[in-house]
Amino acid sequence: MKWDKRHIISIKDFSREEIDYVLKKSVEMEERLDHEKTSTLMKNKILANLFFEPSTRTRMSFEAAMKKLGGVTIGFDYPEISSETKGETIIDTVRIASGYSDVVVIRNPVEGSARLASENSEVPVINGGDGSNQHPTQTLLDLYTIKKEFKKIDGLDICIVGDLKYGRTVHSLTNALENYDVDLCFISPQELKMPRTIVKDLEDKGIKIKESGKLNVKDSDVIYVTRIQKERFPDPQEYERVKDAFVLDLQALEGLKDEAIIMHPLPRVTEISTEIDGTKYARYFQQAKNGIPVRMALLCLVSRIDF
Amino acid sequence: MKWDKRHIISIKDFSREEIDYVLKKSVEMEERLDHEKTSTLMKNKILANLFFEPSTRTRMSFEAAMKKLGGVTIGFDYPEISSETKGETIIDTVRIASGYSDVVVIRNPVEGSARLASENSEVPVINGGDGSNQHPTQTLLDLYTIKKEFKKIDGLDICIVGDLKYGRTVHSLTNALENYDVDLCFISPQELKMPRTIVKDLEDKGIKIKESGKLNVKDSDVIYVTRIQKERFPDPQEYERVKDAFVLDLQALEGLKDEAIIMHPLPRVTEISTEIDGTKYARYFQQAKNGIPVRMALLCLVSRIDF
Amino acid sequence: MKWDKRHIISIKDFSREEIDYVLKKSVEMEERLDHEKTSTLMKNKILANLFFEPSTRTRMSFEAAMKKLGGVTIGFDYPEISSETKGETIIDTVRIASGYSDVVVIRNPVEGSARLASENSEVPVINGGDGSNQHPTQTLLDLYTIKKEFKKIDGLDICIVGDLKYGRTVHSLTNALENYDVDLCFISPQELKMPRTIVKDLEDKGIKIKESGKLNVKDSDVIYVTRIQKERFPDPQEYERVKDAFVLDLQALEGLKDEAIIMHPLPRVTEISTEIDGTKYARYFQQAKNGIPVRMALLCLVSRIDF
Repeated sequence: MKWDKRHIISIKDFSREEIDYVLKKSVEMEERLDHEKTSTLMKNKILANLFFEPSTRTRMSFEAAMKKLGGVTIGFDYPEISSETKGETIIDTVRIASGYSDVVVIRNPVEGSARLASENSEVPVINGGDGSNQHPTQTLLDLYTIKKEFKKIDGLDICIVGDLKYGRTVHSLTNALENYDVDLCFISPQELKMPRTIVKDLEDKGIKIKESGKLNVKDSDVIYVTRIQKERFPDPQEYERVKDAFVLDLQALEGLKDEAIIMHPLPRVTEISTEIDGTKYARYFQQAKNGIPVRMALLCLVSRIDF
Repeated sequence: MKWDKRHIISIKDFSREEIDYVLKKSVEMEERLDHEKTSTLMKNKILANLFFEPSTRTRMSFEAAMKKLGGVTIGFDYPEISSETKGETIIDTVRIASGYSDVVVIRNPVEGSARLASENSEVPVINGGDGSNQHPTQTLLDLYTIKKEFKKIDGLDICIVGDLKYGRTVHSLTNALENYDVDLCFISPQELKMPRTIVKDLEDKGIKIKESGKLNVKDSDVIYVTRIQKERFPDPQEYERVKDAFVLDLQALEGLKDEAIIMHPLPRVTEISTEIDGTKYARYFQQAKNGIPVRMALLCLVSRIDF
Repeated sequence: MKWDKRHIISIKDFSREEIDYVLKKSVEMEERLDHEKTSTLMKNKILANLFFEPSTRTRMSFEAAMKKLGGVTIGFDYPEISSETKGETIIDTVRIASGYSDVVVIRNPVEGSARLASENSEVPVINGGDGSNQHPTQTLLDLYTIKKEFKKIDGLDICIVGDLKYGRTVHSLTNALENYDVDLCFISPQELKMPRTIVKDLEDKGIKIKESGKLNVKDSDVIYVTRIQKERFPDPQEYERVKDAFVLDLQALEGLKDEAIIMHPLPRVTEISTEIDGTKYARYFQQAKNGIPVRMALLCLVSRIDF
């Protein structure tokens, strides 16, 4: 496949062939990491990390990825410090930063901001999360984690738990899974069900969907848990009731398939009990770590660096 | 010329010969950047970026410059994080940071703070802006941009627009232009005219000066626009009236010379209409980018590194 | 000696033999720095600096140390930016960051947090200060400074001045000095005397101790000054009275031994008069600088890198 993406803005811009290509190149990157001590693929290249809202994990992951490639980073990591406070538009900030660098990662709370940035950048732009819209590199590392485990994505029974209404991660992941032959199970409180438009899209593609208000995960290969945020509930008491009903603990795992894995985009609060951390099912810390080879591969791909 | 500056504190410390030398070395640095992929001129050297107030652009520019030279950076970029909060003086902070590094860039809101820092540093100090006083590296990149475009500075008609009373950038630039045979035109609201002492200094040097309250730029080779800040006006209504009268838009460019260029120290708010960004006159993003070779040259010069 | 520490959490975990080994390796590291221009001992290694509270000095010192070893750094340096704000536990943050890096430095205001971090990290952890508990690398650079000056620690008369009740630095230093044959003199206001348990411990080890409320330092080889914080005093007037009585100025140095040195963990506010900075006794800026070779040595030791 010829890679023709200059920017990585939305997982919806990716065909199945393109997603599979990224996953394949990420595997190659991870093997490279295992065998070589030093990479110089991005030597003398500068990554500009433009984080208009804090995100320790995503920012550190991109920084580590770039530095493992022999490159360097510049940037900022909170809105107050940027010229935003002086009234500069995101367009100007990106124009200037792209003049200093070879590739830009942007995180901004405004939906569509990453696309806007890419249209005004001298260099490739990667979306590090634009509000409740998209977080494509998270989705790619999610898929990478699943494929690494099962050697396939087709044929799996994937269960997504938690806030399915507002969760950016969950929407991106579901968008991507449309391309695969999977069975999906959506488990959430009634108030936080998956939007009907997404469910309809999936059904139109022939994906088998179950929806449930009960935390029953026994048939699943992958259990993808997300956080339920208090602020989504007008009634705090309702939140308290719901919160406890969707906590994955040892008891909820009874009868689970041997080879099943539990994932989470992190940060985790109470929705996965820490008693699960030591079980063979827990894969969320490995999942975070998988972000490194995936982001290394993406940085090289958008920079047209062969590997 | 023998370079004998250890610190770069004020553009007033520079003779014309010294300014021209920096511009010549900056051209050499830019050519080097074009031809060589890797620079190791500052290899194993550490730049300490001491930013006591936020400045995304200046900080990122120095970081990119240092890293393109093969060096590394340490530092902080806002006052709360520094030991200032524990009552430490800027003198102590600079003493300690200079013990960790090979060159220091300091930005501090207090006028004179950069000079004070240089007197207490073990290593060379570069002023990254001290309040409303000086920002010498901005002025050098401004001059670099003009000379790159016209191959000369002498003989040009340079028009400076906006807040001429309080603008640090504008005062530094005017200080430097005293050394050249230029015609200057100052365009500002009545409330924000260039201070009389500066105008007198320029006239004593034989510089031809025009002052105007009208945005007429037709005769200019260089139009240097700066922001007019609301907080300078006791009467908000007066600000609203004035603000609109000094916005550079397509209409204001009618009759402009073919070879004219428009500059701005950035960040820009509304004082240059975005419709100008795509014209052949716009040079402000290139100007920001020119900061890289100029700062690379300066880092090497103060460090006594030949190139 | 075989080094068997994977983490550096508390100076109490160190025997005298182990402390002496670190000091010896730090000397070797400093000699290496003098002779070689480039170190690649930590090439391709990543240090994660997890600073949950600001500490310009300690963070910059670790960054400079890592970069002088040819390594790179990632991390954050204030609590708001970390996922703490989203409710993530320090355990999860460390798990994830340790998945991105080869060594972790953590600073967190909660006592015991560094130990907890080390128990949940994939890689070695160094305590950069956990609340009022421990700051072991500060103590090691303190001892390094003393030994560098006198070629020994045994036999010295060491006087510690200031807030002996709450000072973390002072408690760690005293813990370490238990291992040496020193005479200690504790000088503090009545309200801020050294805790009785520490004094008893020292006496049990046979250390000779003097305590005083008067700033008499004439017999001391080492005068270690710390800050007295206003917030320790319920009565502001009492603070004002006490503060002035424990300020080290030129007058207080009358009769001081020729070879005596004055130390301070910094930041210094008013407790050492700046008129002392230029005297032959002042060693506090050198002391801060000594943090570089000591931390370089420690980074290599925990990473099992021979030098």
